[in-house]
Amino acid sequence: MKIEFLPIGIIHTPFMELEGMPIQPPGAASVKGTVEVFENFRSGLKDLDGFSHIILLCHLHRARSHELTVVPYLDDQPRGLFSTRAPSRPNPIGLSVVRLLSVKGNTLEVADLDLLDGTPVLDIKPYVGEFDERTDARLGWLQAARDRKKSADTRFEE
Amino acid sequence: MKIEFLPIGIIHTPFMELEGMPIQPPGAASVKGTVEVFENFRSGLKDLDGFSHIILLCHLHRARSHELTVVPYLDDQPRGLFSTRAPSRPNPIGLSVVRLLSVKGNTLEVADLDLLDGTPVLDIKPYVGEFDERTDARLGWLQAARDRKKSADTRFEE
Repeated sequence: MKIEFLPIGIIHTPFMELEGMPIQPPGAASVKGTVEVFENFRSGLKDLDGFSHIILLCHLHRARSHELTVVPYLDDQPRGLFSTRAPSRPNPIGLSVVRLLSVKGNTLEVADLDLLDGTPVLDIKPYVGEFDERTDARLGWLQAARDRKKSADTRFEE
Repeated sequence: MKIEFLPIGIIHTPFMELEGMPIQPPGAASVKGTVEVFENFRSGLKDLDGFSHIILLCHLHRARSHELTVVPYLDDQPRGLFSTRAPSRPNPIGLSVVRLLSVKGNTLEVADLDLLDGTPVLDIKPYVGEFDERTDARLGWLQAARDRKKSADTRFEE
């Protein structure tokens, strides 16, 4: 049962390679870029400028094919893939909560971008704490690993 | 440029129809269900049981085709689609942060499910507050609308 998606836009960032790219938005706090939404979806951006943060769902198009056990960037032990945020996944969909700085026409100026230049965008959603925030979360293996590596390397790159 | 995905599992919930289904996980706090991960992805679940919350990315397979302006469940004004969490989207990918109660073999027992029975799962990620939480978020039109409707109706159903 194949599911087919089409990009609604494309990401423009300073990152051309995975190596050295920040891991997750908090590692990329000063990194600005733009989301170019394709012209035919432009009217769907109305009202988005009221939100300070948006969720980008992207196709991680440069990730290599997945393995079900990986050594993630943030640990030195092999872990089950679905307990990690590694980009090489059966369906390589990236989830990034980024700051929305402005909306001008079909261009979103955003900050905290942890994505490669040219990444296709699948969806844009408003970030809503009431829906998306869980302040009491237990973090499994990441609990001990949170002070580790802050940028990516080539291990998940094609 | 088509992007093709394959389900990694399927959701089992008490909800057979969109009408009356809770809107977002906090509206479904007592609702339990299971995520059946297909056998060939089972080894990727290792270590997941250390996490109290997981992010489910799903194919909202029952959503009808999208319009770029919608009256969302939580408001009575037309809004730009990407400023809403309406299920009918160009790429109908649902994002739900749910509580992980247990992992038994290839079955995840979860709570706070706001998804229809039979929904195909595209990805499972650990919820990590450091990556996914923004406590200072502005909510645009939703700020005024947060005490509204708590369950879905048929407006986005095929």
